[in-house]
Amino acid sequence: MKCHIVQQRVRFDEVDAAGIVFYPRFFDYFHMAFEDFFGAATGVPYHVWIKERRIGWPTVHVETDFLAPLRYGDAFEVGLSFPKVGRSSFVTRYEVRAHGGLRATAQITSVTTDLDRLESLAIPPDVREALARFPGG
Amino acid sequence: MKCHIVQQRVRFDEVDAAGIVFYPRFFDYFHMAFEDFFGAATGVPYHVWIKERRIGWPTVHVETDFLAPLRYGDAFEVGLSFPKVGRSSFVTRYEVRAHGGLRATAQITSVTTDLDRLESLAIPPDVREALARFPGG
Amino acid sequence: MKCHIVQQRVRFDEVDAAGIVFYPRFFDYFHMAFEDFFGAATGVPYHVWIKERRIGWPTVHVETDFLAPLRYGDAFEVGLSFPKVGRSSFVTRYEVRAHGGLRATAQITSVTTDLDRLESLAIPPDVREALARFPGG
Amino acid sequence: MKCHIVQQRVRFDEVDAAGIVFYPRFFDYFHMAFEDFFGAATGVPYHVWIKERRIGWPTVHVETDFLAPLRYGDAFEVGLSFPKVGRSSFVTRYEVRAHGGLRATAQITSVTTDLDRLESLAIPPDVREALARFPGG
Repeated sequence: MKCHIVQQRVRFDEVDAAGIVFYPRFFDYFHMAFEDFFGAATGVPYHVWIKERRIGWPTVHVETDFLAPLRYGDAFEVGLSFPKVGRSSFVTRYEVRAHGGLRATAQITSVTTDLDRLESLAIPPDVREALARFPGG
Repeated sequence: MKCHIVQQRVRFDEVDAAGIVFYPRFFDYFHMAFEDFFGAATGVPYHVWIKERRIGWPTVHVETDFLAPLRYGDAFEVGLSFPKVGRSSFVTRYEVRAHGGLRATAQITSVTTDLDRLESLAIPPDVREALARFPGG
Repeated sequence: MKCHIVQQRVRFDEVDAAGIVFYPRFFDYFHMAFEDFFGAATGVPYHVWIKERRIGWPTVHVETDFLAPLRYGDAFEVGLSFPKVGRSSFVTRYEVRAHGGLRATAQITSVTTDLDRLESLAIPPDVREALARFPGG
Repeated sequence: MKCHIVQQRVRFDEVDAAGIVFYPRFFDYFHMAFEDFFGAATGVPYHVWIKERRIGWPTVHVETDFLAPLRYGDAFEVGLSFPKVGRSSFVTRYEVRAHGGLRATAQITSVTTDLDRLESLAIPPDVREALARFPGG
């Protein structure tokens, strides 16, 4: 498998007054999946990167298509892959599926950042290796 | 007037799948009102207390009664008063009203805290003076 | 075991500008645990109760003590038990533990409610039976 | 002026464990500004559109650039304009400014939708007229 998959379910409070998942909540889902990926694939939890190594991955660009809504109680999965990996930045592709259908896709660009100096860094070798294992496609 | 009043309106995403404001959102409303109180009544915005003076007010005890729900679009007001003020801790009483009726009340105890040492502190004189202006009742 | 236990971890966005979990997020944690309990213990997911059976459990009273903060990345568990069960309302007791220590406790009173008529109902027998299996103590 | 401007301030809980506004919160800011626009510019609050007229504007496409972070306490403004207006969909352009500098821009495509039938609708004339007053540029 060329994607890292995370299973989730829509919570009681994640829908809006129109009865569907409020679109900003999708970005929360993406970030949860991104955090889970780090723990599972790099062997170092995201919070250790942030708090001890002081390296983070702020988001600089987002492109998202919402194809069909999610509703309260829907089980869904988020698939992550990494179609483009540069020196310090990379693109994470997200695909959200529920009941067998695609609900949303996104390409989100993050930049490896020294959180103390707020300067970009080269992607650390162990992260680069983890990203390379999930090229998608 | 013996309360500090903040006007708000229920946002699109603050309701849950049962169509009423998700009860944890009331605590977000209380905190927004608490932040606004600090800026208005102490003359020093809450973020300056937190980031520059490194003094904060973590919550240690909460009692809340929810009397009637709020719905999307409801205009409401949060009234704050300070019925009990000790050496380092104080109780904030919140009353939420909408369409003329009481919707929720809360008593929330906060402790003045040195955010670097995580030790309790005496309430600073200018905060004590601000609290005393809104005794409620 | 007399509690229903749910494992969680503090997410990246759940801390506040003072670096600890924002206290309203604890109520989100409680509700997640409450939803999980329903699926696990009654055999009927909470979303089916809400959307199909049109029965819900709005919160009417909250008492909470926050004993020690949680920080980003902390693994914690929420234990639920039901020390008081009435005709239509019941009290859920929550205990949050991390690194072996108690961080927060809460007693939250919910009322079984017909979501269409907004009237209280007797606790359904299968829910009553599930609550009785986790008396705590 | 060719933009609708909304003033806001970063709240205590909107930052993440890296100390900057969690990027999904920007989409909450955009939606707050969008709701405010409706009340101010169409004369009909967004909640009346949603709950009484049963017309909503689900998001189908998002493009966002994050140029510089926001921090707790920052005052910022969100400017909305509508550079492209079609039959049922339109693009809202958002520009977030703080301390005189641009922090984020977004183009978000929404589709006018009958919330009961979940079918697209022509943009109502009064909304079309309001959009036309804020072309940006």
